[in-house]
Amino acid sequence: MVEGRQRARELGIRIGDLPTGKHNAITDVAGVRVGHATISYGTADDPPGSGPARTGVTVIWPTSDDLLRHPVAAGFFALSGTGEMTGRSEIEELGRISTPIGLTSTMSVGTVHEGICRYMADHDHGVGGENGVLIPVVAECDDSYLHDARGFHVTTQHVFDALDAASGGQVPEGAVGSGTGMHSFRFKGGIGTSSRFIPDEVGGWTVGVLVMTNFGARHRLTMDGVPVGRHLPLESESGPDRDEGSGIVIVATDAPLDGRQLARLAKRAALGLGRTGSVGADGSGELLLAFSTTYRPNMSDLVASQRLIENHWVDPIFEAAIDASEESVLNALCMAETTDGRSGRVLPALPLDRVRAILAEHGRLST
Amino acid sequence: MVEGRQRARELGIRIGDLPTGKHNAITDVAGVRVGHATISYGTADDPPGSGPARTGVTVIWPTSDDLLRHPVAAGFFALSGTGEMTGRSEIEELGRISTPIGLTSTMSVGTVHEGICRYMADHDHGVGGENGVLIPVVAECDDSYLHDARGFHVTTQHVFDALDAASGGQVPEGAVGSGTGMHSFRFKGGIGTSSRFIPDEVGGWTVGVLVMTNFGARHRLTMDGVPVGRHLPLESESGPDRDEGSGIVIVATDAPLDGRQLARLAKRAALGLGRTGSVGADGSGELLLAFSTTYRPNMSDLVASQRLIENHWVDPIFEAAIDASEESVLNALCMAETTDGRSGRVLPALPLDRVRAILAEHGRLST
Amino acid sequence: MVEGRQRARELGIRIGDLPTGKHNAITDVAGVRVGHATISYGTADDPPGSGPARTGVTVIWPTSDDLLRHPVAAGFFALSGTGEMTGRSEIEELGRISTPIGLTSTMSVGTVHEGICRYMADHDHGVGGENGVLIPVVAECDDSYLHDARGFHVTTQHVFDALDAASGGQVPEGAVGSGTGMHSFRFKGGIGTSSRFIPDEVGGWTVGVLVMTNFGARHRLTMDGVPVGRHLPLESESGPDRDEGSGIVIVATDAPLDGRQLARLAKRAALGLGRTGSVGADGSGELLLAFSTTYRPNMSDLVASQRLIENHWVDPIFEAAIDASEESVLNALCMAETTDGRSGRVLPALPLDRVRAILAEHGRLST
Amino acid sequence: MVEGRQRARELGIRIGDLPTGKHNAITDVAGVRVGHATISYGTADDPPGSGPARTGVTVIWPTSDDLLRHPVAAGFFALSGTGEMTGRSEIEELGRISTPIGLTSTMSVGTVHEGICRYMADHDHGVGGENGVLIPVVAECDDSYLHDARGFHVTTQHVFDALDAASGGQVPEGAVGSGTGMHSFRFKGGIGTSSRFIPDEVGGWTVGVLVMTNFGARHRLTMDGVPVGRHLPLESESGPDRDEGSGIVIVATDAPLDGRQLARLAKRAALGLGRTGSVGADGSGELLLAFSTTYRPNMSDLVASQRLIENHWVDPIFEAAIDASEESVLNALCMAETTDGRSGRVLPALPLDRVRAILAEHGRLST
Repeated sequence: MVEGRQRARELGIRIGDLPTGKHNAITDVAGVRVGHATISYGTADDPPGSGPARTGVTVIWPTSDDLLRHPVAAGFFALSGTGEMTGRSEIEELGRISTPIGLTSTMSVGTVHEGICRYMADHDHGVGGENGVLIPVVAECDDSYLHDARGFHVTTQHVFDALDAASGGQVPEGAVGSGTGMHSFRFKGGIGTSSRFIPDEVGGWTVGVLVMTNFGARHRLTMDGVPVGRHLPLESESGPDRDEGSGIVIVATDAPLDGRQLARLAKRAALGLGRTGSVGADGSGELLLAFSTTYRPNMSDLVASQRLIENHWVDPIFEAAIDASEESVLNALCMAETTDGRSGRVLPALPLDRVRAILAEHGRLST
Repeated sequence: MVEGRQRARELGIRIGDLPTGKHNAITDVAGVRVGHATISYGTADDPPGSGPARTGVTVIWPTSDDLLRHPVAAGFFALSGTGEMTGRSEIEELGRISTPIGLTSTMSVGTVHEGICRYMADHDHGVGGENGVLIPVVAECDDSYLHDARGFHVTTQHVFDALDAASGGQVPEGAVGSGTGMHSFRFKGGIGTSSRFIPDEVGGWTVGVLVMTNFGARHRLTMDGVPVGRHLPLESESGPDRDEGSGIVIVATDAPLDGRQLARLAKRAALGLGRTGSVGADGSGELLLAFSTTYRPNMSDLVASQRLIENHWVDPIFEAAIDASEESVLNALCMAETTDGRSGRVLPALPLDRVRAILAEHGRLST
Repeated sequence: MVEGRQRARELGIRIGDLPTGKHNAITDVAGVRVGHATISYGTADDPPGSGPARTGVTVIWPTSDDLLRHPVAAGFFALSGTGEMTGRSEIEELGRISTPIGLTSTMSVGTVHEGICRYMADHDHGVGGENGVLIPVVAECDDSYLHDARGFHVTTQHVFDALDAASGGQVPEGAVGSGTGMHSFRFKGGIGTSSRFIPDEVGGWTVGVLVMTNFGARHRLTMDGVPVGRHLPLESESGPDRDEGSGIVIVATDAPLDGRQLARLAKRAALGLGRTGSVGADGSGELLLAFSTTYRPNMSDLVASQRLIENHWVDPIFEAAIDASEESVLNALCMAETTDGRSGRVLPALPLDRVRAILAEHGRLST
Repeated sequence: MVEGRQRARELGIRIGDLPTGKHNAITDVAGVRVGHATISYGTADDPPGSGPARTGVTVIWPTSDDLLRHPVAAGFFALSGTGEMTGRSEIEELGRISTPIGLTSTMSVGTVHEGICRYMADHDHGVGGENGVLIPVVAECDDSYLHDARGFHVTTQHVFDALDAASGGQVPEGAVGSGTGMHSFRFKGGIGTSSRFIPDEVGGWTVGVLVMTNFGARHRLTMDGVPVGRHLPLESESGPDRDEGSGIVIVATDAPLDGRQLARLAKRAALGLGRTGSVGADGSGELLLAFSTTYRPNMSDLVASQRLIENHWVDPIFEAAIDASEESVLNALCMAETTDGRSGRVLPALPLDRVRAILAEHGRLST
């Protein structure tokens, strides 16, 4: 944990009515692992192309199984398409993903794509042969406000490191991994995560979310319904020139949802972004992916039986994804510390004391 | 105005930072007219198929011009597709609409469709001949919790009446027109409207929204960020068996946006529904349409110049549509009075005094 | 059968390599029934609004089961959206349909929609009550070249008649039902159907198609690859002023495909239209629906097992749908007889003798 | 030109009625340039990971202008999504592209992505700074039947080479650039191109297409309507185990079409693939992109006038794109020579003499 930073729940915020999972993280969905490679070196004095590096790679393994032979079901939604998530076309066609998911800086998508392919090929001798080739899922936000994007500081080794480092349990949040250089609402943003548990009588499923935040105009910042941004106006035109950026949302669940239902789920998760203040801005690629660890498309038999939730029962899962997405964004903001970068720029951390006071004035802190 | 009912702003609610138009209604966009035909007769004692009727027709004329020869640009989005908006395929293909828009009860979509065709044919001798045939836009919500849907009480005459009655200026809200029998968050819902004005330096445009609400689970009801639904729990399992329904959002603007941009705008307006508590529930068809009164597709020349906003400048319009959608839903709730219906059912009006108190406790009433 | 008309196979045409089903019709898929109500009266001398009527209603029942409680899986695709197929949004959201499918004239969509609702309500007392309301699937083409569309000649009684008349077995083709007034490639078109059987070793499934044709420019008309249209040039500018119109394709199968896979199948069927000469013209709404009689979405349990084909095995089904769509269009052309209509207009039947000669010259008749 | 190989027109094939442009190539659209980097070394004896390399990079520059500041309008369509075209989400959101387009082998998408970013950054000091970051368009097919995909033989230098080598005029076709290792209908495939000119009275536009073919089952191969594949049956189960692969289609035009219209155009081009025998197979990612060199989105003013074609006039452009796509696929097949690869595999060239004889028997060679 970062000194002086607290997750939204530690501040006293409660989003929605459903309980969280054990770690209040995407890793509460069994089998999901997250790994970060944080790349941070150099100073504002470095010439463009040399530094400073404020970037990284974050990966999500949807399952410990052999993904190529046993893909997980998946669905996609673009709240705003001004961004990149590779693999999208295959997700929409086949309703599944077969690789780990990588997050990174916009112009490092290619490097992370190559890194995932190389890693998988190294670990599976069938890749490129009898098991076919890979179409990885790699998504990005633009960290070039702080980061020297011209320097192409991400290497395939960083990708291998993140893939190897991945683990379950607590997930480092804020300015780590691919979130190292990201902003949000002109504060420092980055990686956030949260989860919800759905009561046994309506399924007993877990829904976990991980976000990479890089979006939001200050005046729209809303925390659990409270217009915090209005009370923390920009002191100057610091921050990105436009209130743009991007946001990536990864929703994991152990509920047996197929590709069509997961696309629905990804769409609903966008409402969680909206509740924090997103307008799906023109320059902000807000892309969402949902996957199920238990709906595993049949890859061998002509016909096979698949266990699937009836449409009628998806509403609690929708609710969980919306609330966990909202809380994940808040966690990214709450956990990210003040970070400097190129051209003497600084993105301030969200001032937690002031936020706590504002929330208290609005009767919104649980104690 | 309905006795004892107040619009959200009269309660003291302010959604977002942008000013409203003159009437805080979709009709603030010049040329837009709204007409209602309210159908309400019979009692709970009527046998199914005879009554009671708690339904109606609401129409929106996008412009006073000859729509068939000078269509308006339009775009569509489905937050949740479990509903109907006819004309959608043509909107997506051609980016335009050529007829008035009708709203009604689910199983009366056909009647309203026929009514619009007949009305237009009566008023334009080219319809069905040299000017082609019509593909009207008709959307629905399910009012069968109160309404005797088996009675097919809507007639083409009701459609003609609503089309003829349409006017600019103030728009009756709540349990009127197609909103007569609709619910929302297990309160009485119906028709609501709102508008925003975008400052001259970023365009000087007006954005108006009209919603037909029929969605929402009580515990999710959120008013300007305040979790009002938590403070007004269901006293019994009154209301629809499932927290489903539907919601229709019509966004009008005089900003010169083309079909692609209007589809983006419709998508963003969905975030306004999310801010009131929608989860895009499985059984709730939440369908959104946006049109521009000033981007008028060229229908004659091989090539023509069209004035169009640069992508970069759409963010304030997105913001306006989100905020006006949110406020429109609140207006529907605030203006609808308690209504009875079939099988002894009653949908209570949102208790404004209690709401005012809850908002005050959360520091959210402007005075 | 119409005197002097022959189906494409009787002419000697063979599309693709797969065998047909017993009737070479959509009804070869067990449980599928088709009904026509043909509306043809009046002459060219009738004043607009009185006649002549050259229109009708065609219905497809996907199954004999209770559709509302046991819907069939379904998917949608728009090759060109300039048309109408109601119910599309729900198909895309839930991957299923719960009503019979109606085909008719463009401005009679409303009447057929109402007719299906009334019929279903009459036959199911739960409609409008505990079993909810209906969102029927109704699609159209524009028959106003011959037909007096201003006369609104279709009534709900015609819909009831078509629904009651529906049967399996041979399907009347050409200028019948909703095909009564339709054109194609400036010949008389209408209803056509075809089917394919997929070998047991890759599933043993049946795929059936029914089309309503109303599209195509003469010079593009292609029959089994032979550019027949080039050899049958327009003798004058007879026929619709623009080479537009529309086309509706309904694909049925007993293969267990879910909504996502059926949307893929509907998309592939569009390639069959392309092989006959469609360009998906600007004014031609070419809309496609596919449904499965064996993938029946779970409507009761929280989770249930569903038998589903593995993605890998869909290629023969794709091939069957493409070939059956192509042959269905040819059957509509081959079976439709010369038909007169309003304003002294006549749409000639495809001249089968000349077609046979052209095909023979191109080495394409099997004997 | 490759010895002994001929383009489809040289064989005597004529697809459709419209004339071609000067080079019958995508470069007939003024400003469009194509560059290849062919990577071919090693033999079947090389151990996996070392070779043989049968791959490459092909790039298309949509215009000579500064793409970042003056993007071209663009639209996307997936006939079958089982593949990758990066940049798709941004194309769909903003209707434009701002980078050259790269084509390559599936697992080299990342390298080409990085290569384009590095090249553009090297040539534009604003990239990564005041001009923002790049979201390149990179598409792939799977050449691993012949190629040692495990060897990651594509480097960023190959990308730079292709970008630098790009030129107008004649375009090398067949087994060149990214087409070096691709198959089609179990023959050798690769790169093909074609163009059409639309008569002045309906616009005077040029439409050019470039395809990378890697799809098709032998028995479906159709050349100008003639079922050539039936007459050239597989002699053994040589070729890819499944009749899968992929196909990429790039459509260029100087007609002023916006993003929405270009998405429509991309969709129609898919019909050209269908006419050659594509079924949009499960494992075949058939992705299509269309761009306009004359519709240049306003990137500076709040509102600007844009010249745009009326919807009504797009049909000849649709026709041109379909025919040029069909001919491009044939050109890829006709121009590609026999190629060997890994594991002793050989993909034979399409036997032109036999094809010529088959076409003659079917009365289809113009002389």
